[in-house]
Amino acid sequence: MVERDSKQDEHFMKLAYEEALKAYEADEVPVGAIVVANGTVIARAHNYTERLNDVTAHAEMQAITSAADYLGGKYLNECTLYVTLEPCVMCAGALNHAHLGRLVFGAEDAKRGYRSITEPLLHPKTKVSFGQKQSECSDLLLKFFKEKRKV
Amino acid sequence: MVERDSKQDEHFMKLAYEEALKAYEADEVPVGAIVVANGTVIARAHNYTERLNDVTAHAEMQAITSAADYLGGKYLNECTLYVTLEPCVMCAGALNHAHLGRLVFGAEDAKRGYRSITEPLLHPKTKVSFGQKQSECSDLLLKFFKEKRKV
Repeated sequence: MVERDSKQDEHFMKLAYEEALKAYEADEVPVGAIVVANGTVIARAHNYTERLNDVTAHAEMQAITSAADYLGGKYLNECTLYVTLEPCVMCAGALNHAHLGRLVFGAEDAKRGYRSITEPLLHPKTKVSFGQKQSECSDLLLKFFKEKRKV
Repeated sequence: MVERDSKQDEHFMKLAYEEALKAYEADEVPVGAIVVANGTVIARAHNYTERLNDVTAHAEMQAITSAADYLGGKYLNECTLYVTLEPCVMCAGALNHAHLGRLVFGAEDAKRGYRSITEPLLHPKTKVSFGQKQSECSDLLLKFFKEKRKV
């Protein structure tokens, strides 16, 4: 059963935000994600593209891999993924392959988010909510890029 | 410099096809990929989704990760990726992030290929060729799925 309680959403998005903070502290684009199944966190991840030198190491991608490993199966139809930023096209494609049950994201990404594409990229059964901790998630990203421009 | 010689393309697509054969023998959807930089193969990979229980383990994704690891940098703008099947949305998104120099694919995928999406998903600088070994690549996939239906 996927989570749909707003207090739970707030709690879990806080954990995703904590992952984003870890990315920020590691000088990575601050995006964090967690996967929840039956009220339990089964995966935590943050963006790791710089340290791994790997464009595929987005928070969501690692969270999917980690959650599937925990479950022993590749489908996440009973899971909710909380992520601080709207997933990109690559991550939306992966979430589609995983048949994700529910997606909750924080900040919207008008330029690179999956919703900038005309066709629906997620699996038709994936429920979507967004706006949880939108301003915190967004502010952290803005702070990161502002500091980068100063360097 | 990215490769654009048709004999080279044929040679490298043959190597990608050999990777697809390895996937077939391992009971994975038979898709193979290689990455070439300055005429040298720097990464080989095949689909591994079943054995790893991981929807992100497409041939292209692993080839990107492996090539970036070899190069010590995450951008593949000087590389050509040869893959036996038209990349999906997830893989096209990853190839975009990697600023891939050139993509050569074998069989087209009208249903799940990245070209089924209205917006261009690859990086604007990525050159694309397709149709190399199209029938062999396609036949191997058809054979795999035909056998699966019999099980």
